[in-house]
Amino acid sequence: MSEATYRDAVTVEWGDCDEAGIVFYPNYFYWFDCGFQRLLRGRGLSQRILRDRFGAVTPILRAEAEFVAPARYDDVLAIVAQVEQWEARRFRVTYTLSHDDRPVARGYETRAWATVTQDGRLKGATIPEEFRSLLER
Amino acid sequence: MSEATYRDAVTVEWGDCDEAGIVFYPNYFYWFDCGFQRLLRGRGLSQRILRDRFGAVTPILRAEAEFVAPARYDDVLAIVAQVEQWEARRFRVTYTLSHDDRPVARGYETRAWATVTQDGRLKGATIPEEFRSLLER
Amino acid sequence: MSEATYRDAVTVEWGDCDEAGIVFYPNYFYWFDCGFQRLLRGRGLSQRILRDRFGAVTPILRAEAEFVAPARYDDVLAIVAQVEQWEARRFRVTYTLSHDDRPVARGYETRAWATVTQDGRLKGATIPEEFRSLLER
Amino acid sequence: MSEATYRDAVTVEWGDCDEAGIVFYPNYFYWFDCGFQRLLRGRGLSQRILRDRFGAVTPILRAEAEFVAPARYDDVLAIVAQVEQWEARRFRVTYTLSHDDRPVARGYETRAWATVTQDGRLKGATIPEEFRSLLER
Repeated sequence: MSEATYRDAVTVEWGDCDEAGIVFYPNYFYWFDCGFQRLLRGRGLSQRILRDRFGAVTPILRAEAEFVAPARYDDVLAIVAQVEQWEARRFRVTYTLSHDDRPVARGYETRAWATVTQDGRLKGATIPEEFRSLLER
Repeated sequence: MSEATYRDAVTVEWGDCDEAGIVFYPNYFYWFDCGFQRLLRGRGLSQRILRDRFGAVTPILRAEAEFVAPARYDDVLAIVAQVEQWEARRFRVTYTLSHDDRPVARGYETRAWATVTQDGRLKGATIPEEFRSLLER
Repeated sequence: MSEATYRDAVTVEWGDCDEAGIVFYPNYFYWFDCGFQRLLRGRGLSQRILRDRFGAVTPILRAEAEFVAPARYDDVLAIVAQVEQWEARRFRVTYTLSHDDRPVARGYETRAWATVTQDGRLKGATIPEEFRSLLER
Repeated sequence: MSEATYRDAVTVEWGDCDEAGIVFYPNYFYWFDCGFQRLLRGRGLSQRILRDRFGAVTPILRAEAEFVAPARYDDVLAIVAQVEQWEARRFRVTYTLSHDDRPVARGYETRAWATVTQDGRLKGATIPEEFRSLLER
């Protein structure tokens, strides 16, 4: 498995579930995003550090999830996040959430690399080697 | 355009945006789901009515979104939801959110038709013609 | 009734409810905040305009809610927001949410008036008469 | 300090903050609720177990929070939850969230004890000694 892997766990909280007693699906994308932020933290990075060090942000271009099995209140979900595809100006992070070693949801985020111009607009840019190597180390 | 179309609008609220001042992306999926529920309402249906009349629910199998342009606090987003693909046991609802006639996000949900067994488990089932015709009318 | 009153409605969405089939209570505070933002909009204001015109923000100091009756998926809740107590540097907005004319929840937010210093810190300040009169008109 | 105390921590996630870069306040109530659920878990309980063992739920009657200092993305917040006031049919849980030993928010939830009738309605009831002693042990 690539080194650019992050593992963590979340507990499904009461407020994360809907009337059917299963996770309301937008919450999986919240956990995807948390997984990415925590993956950054594990590399000594964060949105703020990206902004300060690279003048850059990582806007989301696309997200997809497949819901394989329901998860319920009190379930502890293991999250594996992995940076898998590097292109010049974008990268993909895949996520797998599982409960008791059975997959519950899997999906990905495609994120761009963008610099912030002086007037606050975003401009797509080439991913610096330093960022890539920090995530792959 | 197919009749199975629903149009509505949401206002991006302060709490829907992140520190970058743009919509935190899981909220788009919340709006997708709201769009589906409102589409049901527009046909005189709801999750409760589906449960009562058909003994069925519409669990989500897959969701995807492409984020085309950022949306910000106070933007009024037009939502168009459309049931597009009917298969025997599943259907797809596509969503487009736009601001001032420019697309902001688009995506889809794939939903299954499932009956609830006596012990509370879900079992995939053929979509009844009555449900399909209510959504297509 | 004071002029500084705002009336609107929200529909309880599927994702707003918990496994018990009733609104997960933090959502009431989300609706309180939305009510305040919409009250501002109704006066031609917004967080951005406050920042631009007054160099100020309205940080929340305290919030409280009493939950009188459960609300459920598909219920349409009427919201009444009212600015009730003006002090030199803070004000209170009360909220009542009701369903079919029966109260569901009521509460308030206490908000401060604060200017943003050059280094980005907040500093409590006296509420300008212009802001107060815009909200009371 | 009473035995009915629960300690935990949450990390403020990107999606928990608003455009001002601070926690959007309804999230504090989400963390209050999580704190209560985790306090139950620490006693071998959960909403489901309460329902099964006692036929009861703990509906929220009132919640309040005071926001003492802003919290930001990546801050780790310590939570202390404590059951403080027992009445015959209700109890109060207080919460303190702090960052680097400085309080960020504090508040409480008042919860009732209610049994679920055969037709699904809630009926206030006297808190069983067994529940109280489980939370106080």
